[in-house]
Amino acid sequence: FVPPGVLPLSRQPLAWGRARRQPPGPPLAPCRAFSNNKILVELDESSGVATMKFKSPPVNSLNLDFLTEFCISLEKLENDRACRGVILTSAIPKIFSSGLDITEMCGKSTEHYAEFWRAVQELWLRMYSSNMVTIAAVNGSSPAGGCLIALTCDYRIMVDNPKFSIGLNEAQLGIVAPFWFKDTFVNTVGHRVAERSLQLGFLYPAPEAHRFGLVDELVPEEKLQEKAAAVMAQWLALPDHARQLTKSMMRKAVLDRLVAHREEDIQNFISFISKESIQKSLRMYMEMLKKKS
Amino acid sequence: FVPPGVLPLSRQPLAWGRARRQPPGPPLAPCRAFSNNKILVELDESSGVATMKFKSPPVNSLNLDFLTEFCISLEKLENDRACRGVILTSAIPKIFSSGLDITEMCGKSTEHYAEFWRAVQELWLRMYSSNMVTIAAVNGSSPAGGCLIALTCDYRIMVDNPKFSIGLNEAQLGIVAPFWFKDTFVNTVGHRVAERSLQLGFLYPAPEAHRFGLVDELVPEEKLQEKAAAVMAQWLALPDHARQLTKSMMRKAVLDRLVAHREEDIQNFISFISKESIQKSLRMYMEMLKKKS
Amino acid sequence: FVPPGVLPLSRQPLAWGRARRQPPGPPLAPCRAFSNNKILVELDESSGVATMKFKSPPVNSLNLDFLTEFCISLEKLENDRACRGVILTSAIPKIFSSGLDITEMCGKSTEHYAEFWRAVQELWLRMYSSNMVTIAAVNGSSPAGGCLIALTCDYRIMVDNPKFSIGLNEAQLGIVAPFWFKDTFVNTVGHRVAERSLQLGFLYPAPEAHRFGLVDELVPEEKLQEKAAAVMAQWLALPDHARQLTKSMMRKAVLDRLVAHREEDIQNFISFISKESIQKSLRMYMEMLKKKS
Repeated sequence: FVPPGVLPLSRQPLAWGRARRQPPGPPLAPCRAFSNNKILVELDESSGVATMKFKSPPVNSLNLDFLTEFCISLEKLENDRACRGVILTSAIPKIFSSGLDITEMCGKSTEHYAEFWRAVQELWLRMYSSNMVTIAAVNGSSPAGGCLIALTCDYRIMVDNPKFSIGLNEAQLGIVAPFWFKDTFVNTVGHRVAERSLQLGFLYPAPEAHRFGLVDELVPEEKLQEKAAAVMAQWLALPDHARQLTKSMMRKAVLDRLVAHREEDIQNFISFISKESIQKSLRMYMEMLKKKS
Repeated sequence: FVPPGVLPLSRQPLAWGRARRQPPGPPLAPCRAFSNNKILVELDESSGVATMKFKSPPVNSLNLDFLTEFCISLEKLENDRACRGVILTSAIPKIFSSGLDITEMCGKSTEHYAEFWRAVQELWLRMYSSNMVTIAAVNGSSPAGGCLIALTCDYRIMVDNPKFSIGLNEAQLGIVAPFWFKDTFVNTVGHRVAERSLQLGFLYPAPEAHRFGLVDELVPEEKLQEKAAAVMAQWLALPDHARQLTKSMMRKAVLDRLVAHREEDIQNFISFISKESIQKSLRMYMEMLKKKS
Repeated sequence: FVPPGVLPLSRQPLAWGRARRQPPGPPLAPCRAFSNNKILVELDESSGVATMKFKSPPVNSLNLDFLTEFCISLEKLENDRACRGVILTSAIPKIFSSGLDITEMCGKSTEHYAEFWRAVQELWLRMYSSNMVTIAAVNGSSPAGGCLIALTCDYRIMVDNPKFSIGLNEAQLGIVAPFWFKDTFVNTVGHRVAERSLQLGFLYPAPEAHRFGLVDELVPEEKLQEKAAAVMAQWLALPDHARQLTKSMMRKAVLDRLVAHREEDIQNFISFISKESIQKSLRMYMEMLKKKS
């Protein structure tokens, strides 16, 4: 197993601006990049394709800072006429994203839970309804909220390594994936696979995830970015307008459902997560994680 | 083909109580059992797993007595804190259940049809919403209502024998599966397979049923109970609360639909089954069955 | 590749009536036929099976005349007690139907667009709710509206030739399949395959279409009609009444949706198709087609 090369982040500008790299081959097209604490964004103007690279060690967990940066970055790209597609991937070896940060759900105030959950909803709403072509280049494990990010994309490519797994494993932690995680999952793998996988909190090794339709394609790690670019080109060959309307038609029912029940969903989350039994489960899970590492 | 051994039912107590068997191997864990005319129930307290064995010769057909005993037994287990999962299987060789008893639908009063149909609904409502882990160990053919029982479970294991078939074959009898049979079927195999199978009243031999997702797994007959226990252990490894909430989330829409239209559905059944043309079809079908045997 | 033989249409009567052919072998059953400009209809009274053969050169495109004749023919068959099933196929080599006629959507009046769209809706409503068994014998390519006709059938058999393709490729033309095209597609191939296929406007070669469930079966060209007849016999073996009620139960939700929003859908089509950008896309597409041929 060869971990993916980490980008030299320090050489990236910290805000939008022209970034000129010195590639060994032919000169690259102009490329704007911006980076902040958690995510590195690069936009290749010649292709119209941006890459969002998660760089929040150790495991790209989705805390409030990450979620906020994610949504701001996504909004910038969405409003940038030069950008038509975005590839999501990780700058951390072996992990795409570990999902929601459990520390945000443990021993915090009601207000904090509400703010956190609204940010999770926001990420899902923006990704699942994005006008851009969205491709997940899953170069590491991707449990729970990490899997959710992949599920919101138009296409999922995963590194063909059985050590990397993906799935909505909330049930294993004693918690329940919200209905809109479930709806997204059902839209991807169908009702029966979703019912069984969610109840058992399955994490599928990449080859199995592919067999069940949770990811669309497997590639060797060294081919991942190339493949993602090729698939992106295929999707961008379609007229944006027709593709966007079609995407919206496919996803509208599920998107509308959260929009209609957003505040109720936040209240449900708060009352669920505030239960002593749930808090205890999460503390035990964190203890287990600490012992593991 | 080797038929499964029939349990020595006469040695089982007729009500809840300690049943001590003399196994050839190491001593078994304490086990409570109760039995009545149609179903034998054994609860292994050490594992929290009950087995409901259908023992209503000749073919475990679902008449009013069977349905009533089924629901009473299920309710007892549901309310028993020692019980977390239930395995459904048959004590009759070669048949899991032949489905609804046609004699209950032929030449009876309107009141009888209403009572019978309410009992069928009750079985479905209780099984599909059960808080316990439910596993069907399908050790014989399972047409129509027999298939429905399997469909309500969390997992279906079937004996790998092409002589055993399973499916919702109502259309072959000239009758129509009600919408909640259909909803359960669609949730399991998807819309297209359901549409074709229901219209043609397909009975799938076990290997084909597995290919279409109607059953989850095939095993040799002698491994069935062992496999069911192993799968049960896998499901019971999850925290009950999270698993139950997840199951409820997956099945709620379909359950709510029958609850909202229950009386209407009973009236539909009565007016449909009371038609002379349908009565004639059913009589012809019963004649055919008699000639066959 | 051997193109299918075209029927000697001139020998067919132009209206309902007994048509007696001189077969080389044993005498055929009495067969009524009617034909008009676009579609040849033959009803074999002994089997109760009609064949509708599209014969509108060059590519069986669905213009207003074709749609009108289609619906009239279908209604005649639907009301004919001698007819229980219909096989749709093409009399034009290599093409089943090229879909909606773009000339009907280009540079015409609002009233014309409304009339045209209502006719497309009518075809879909009648086919998807038909009481007859409907089988598509797809003996050539079948994009867009051609694919839709196949999707409305109970069963799809396609010639096993990778040169023939099928799919809802509207997005490639810069237009969007309406929600009821989408609903029919989702009911056939599931949500995920539909989402990806519709966004990319995929045309699947026959073998791939079969793999994704877009067609049910592939056969060599010379076996197509024979196979269609055999499958039809299998479906007709079921009691009509039960099969029809089951079909209606499976398709009702999707049918009701268009019925409830029919006028709104027509207005949407008119305002979409009247846009200058869309008109430009369609003109460009027609230019491209002309250059190709």
